[in-house]
Amino acid sequence: MKFRYTKSVPKNNDNATAEILKAAANPKVISFGGGLPAPELFPVEEMKTAADKVFDKYGKVVLQYSEAIGYSKLRKQIIDLMKERKVEVKLDNVGIVTGSQQAIDLIARMLLNPGDVVITEDPTYLAAIDVFNSYGANIVGVSMDDDGMKTDDLEKLVKKYPEAKFIYTIPNFQNPTGRTMTEYRRKKLVKIAKDAEIPVVEDDPYGAIRYAGNYVPPLKHFDRDGGVIYLSSFSKILAPGLRMGWIVADKSFMNKFVMLKQNADLHTDNLTQYIVSQFLIDVDIKKHIKDITHVYEHRANLMVKQIDKYFPQNVNHSNPEGGMFIWVEVPGVGDTNELFKACIRNNVAFVPGSSFFAGDIKPGTFRLNFSNMNDDQIKEGIKRMGKSIAEILSDNKY
Amino acid sequence: MKFRYTKSVPKNNDNATAEILKAAANPKVISFGGGLPAPELFPVEEMKTAADKVFDKYGKVVLQYSEAIGYSKLRKQIIDLMKERKVEVKLDNVGIVTGSQQAIDLIARMLLNPGDVVITEDPTYLAAIDVFNSYGANIVGVSMDDDGMKTDDLEKLVKKYPEAKFIYTIPNFQNPTGRTMTEYRRKKLVKIAKDAEIPVVEDDPYGAIRYAGNYVPPLKHFDRDGGVIYLSSFSKILAPGLRMGWIVADKSFMNKFVMLKQNADLHTDNLTQYIVSQFLIDVDIKKHIKDITHVYEHRANLMVKQIDKYFPQNVNHSNPEGGMFIWVEVPGVGDTNELFKACIRNNVAFVPGSSFFAGDIKPGTFRLNFSNMNDDQIKEGIKRMGKSIAEILSDNKY
Repeated sequence: MKFRYTKSVPKNNDNATAEILKAAANPKVISFGGGLPAPELFPVEEMKTAADKVFDKYGKVVLQYSEAIGYSKLRKQIIDLMKERKVEVKLDNVGIVTGSQQAIDLIARMLLNPGDVVITEDPTYLAAIDVFNSYGANIVGVSMDDDGMKTDDLEKLVKKYPEAKFIYTIPNFQNPTGRTMTEYRRKKLVKIAKDAEIPVVEDDPYGAIRYAGNYVPPLKHFDRDGGVIYLSSFSKILAPGLRMGWIVADKSFMNKFVMLKQNADLHTDNLTQYIVSQFLIDVDIKKHIKDITHVYEHRANLMVKQIDKYFPQNVNHSNPEGGMFIWVEVPGVGDTNELFKACIRNNVAFVPGSSFFAGDIKPGTFRLNFSNMNDDQIKEGIKRMGKSIAEILSDNKY
Repeated sequence: MKFRYTKSVPKNNDNATAEILKAAANPKVISFGGGLPAPELFPVEEMKTAADKVFDKYGKVVLQYSEAIGYSKLRKQIIDLMKERKVEVKLDNVGIVTGSQQAIDLIARMLLNPGDVVITEDPTYLAAIDVFNSYGANIVGVSMDDDGMKTDDLEKLVKKYPEAKFIYTIPNFQNPTGRTMTEYRRKKLVKIAKDAEIPVVEDDPYGAIRYAGNYVPPLKHFDRDGGVIYLSSFSKILAPGLRMGWIVADKSFMNKFVMLKQNADLHTDNLTQYIVSQFLIDVDIKKHIKDITHVYEHRANLMVKQIDKYFPQNVNHSNPEGGMFIWVEVPGVGDTNELFKACIRNNVAFVPGSSFFAGDIKPGTFRLNFSNMNDDQIKEGIKRMGKSIAEILSDNKY
């Protein structure tokens, strides 16, 4: 049977992410590739206890069908989490999603017709690019510096594309760059968007994991007209395997969102919603996040130290204040897919920069994840990368 | 902020399903509305044991990110389940989805452009209609009789719409009619579809729950060119709250499907995949399905007996051989949404036929679910419905 696919279906069978994960799955390979949390920090025993309680107390309820918008008790707990993030919301504004990835997909479906413009940081989260492309969007990137998205450039782009459907941004410890948007720029972004009547999708999976610098409130904190749709997740502060995220939005938007969410999977796994809710009752999540943050701080600092030791002197790298990623630019390297191959030969992996650019690829760039590898692996892995970079630079000379 | 939505977003805020569930949520109401399994049959203790084993054996693995196509061990177990359903498949053909609802949504996205024809039984599953409508499809219904979709009519429709994108069918204990397609018609449907080069989406959530008549193999059993995409689920044979379904399809189709699945939610909840897999090792699922089937048989027979006693003599109703639904047609009632209101006043609920027709609504029709209520509720509820029908028929006389 020859299937006649829509344009939503990628023509080729390239699945860059899957390929990278596959290459990195070789146990010999030290992988700075995937955006994986440190599994040794997963609270397995506490989750098991929570699950036992849920089966004992709510066994028949959690195994039954449930509401598309999500378990109300968990949504109330998210209201509290949001309060700590300086965002005041009501129950109607909060919905549970099957990972915040699902929210990105459904929002794109709600707002993007083929050819519509979506504005993102350049570079940005690769699976958001995949989603926007699958809806036929025209992704327009805004350049960044150490203070995050350049809002002066954004202002120009919004004038050029007044019909842009939304601005997608990861203000905290951005994926892939690890950079954080300043408060000044956040306020400015919200104002630009409001004036142009363009919604903002604020993706904040990493915000809670800050180990340096000062807390900056989310864009949603500065939102006065409901134009900011805020996404977050338990993936980085608890466990990604659960596929448990949330959306905070204007009530009228939520009503529409929930209808598409119901079409997409009826509702998110009810059992896991209850387990996470019980976990939040039993365990001090702030303490748990502090433990994660402490380990990631150590790993980030170690990785930076190793980069400074083993990479060429002229490399640029970001200095994240939290999250899981460092962005590196090595002058003279060119296509980092070539560097990737050299690294795989030396049993170390990362994600080439090309995956994160919707348009022009900045040469010599790549993303390093520091959360998923231990000290010895970081030391040895960055050393191997240094060796691979030297090989590539030496090849490129001829 | 005024959001500029795509046509995927329903213009009105009607959510028939949600309204019905809400009305039925009143504890005074006896509800034959939702397609809910009997919660007293959920194997809570066995699931708890499975969860404990999973946390002990695979705690760190199940909490981590995983593959979009699903947990390979669970997929192997599904190969065995499929073998019992007389379908031989390989690992590459099997994917895990967040409920088979997700597969319906993603397949529609892969195949339906606005205006494209999709052929379904008339009436059909309401959440499939919602999905197809959200992609702007032109849903063309094929009439049914007690032997399922009329394949002679299908043949004519396929000639009229040679560009139809797929045929969506629920051959076993169809939702909403409870009817089952004969083996003769299954073979014929597969041949018609193959000759016309139109894929078939076979949705089979209820097939394992047969309490009368003879087993009929799925359409997929008769498929020789990979044109049949088969969907099933653990919702009815285990628990729907888990949102755990599967897709069986041609390898080339699966490759594409998995890319969109990855966009949609990265992967299905890993913890629950492992729990279901462990449950299938620990518990004899065939025995468990037999227990469910036995209870449902009793309830279906009781409901039919009560219908014959309390409904007017001239009603038509289906006589399901399995599944969860009876379809009723009461001459003279007209709009069953009016009957629904009368029933709610008498504290009993069902789903009006209008929800299941994409085109013309057959008057006086509605769906009854018999799996979710106990003997006393079925006896009392059908009695209340009989009273409500009498009220409506008496009103309609004047």
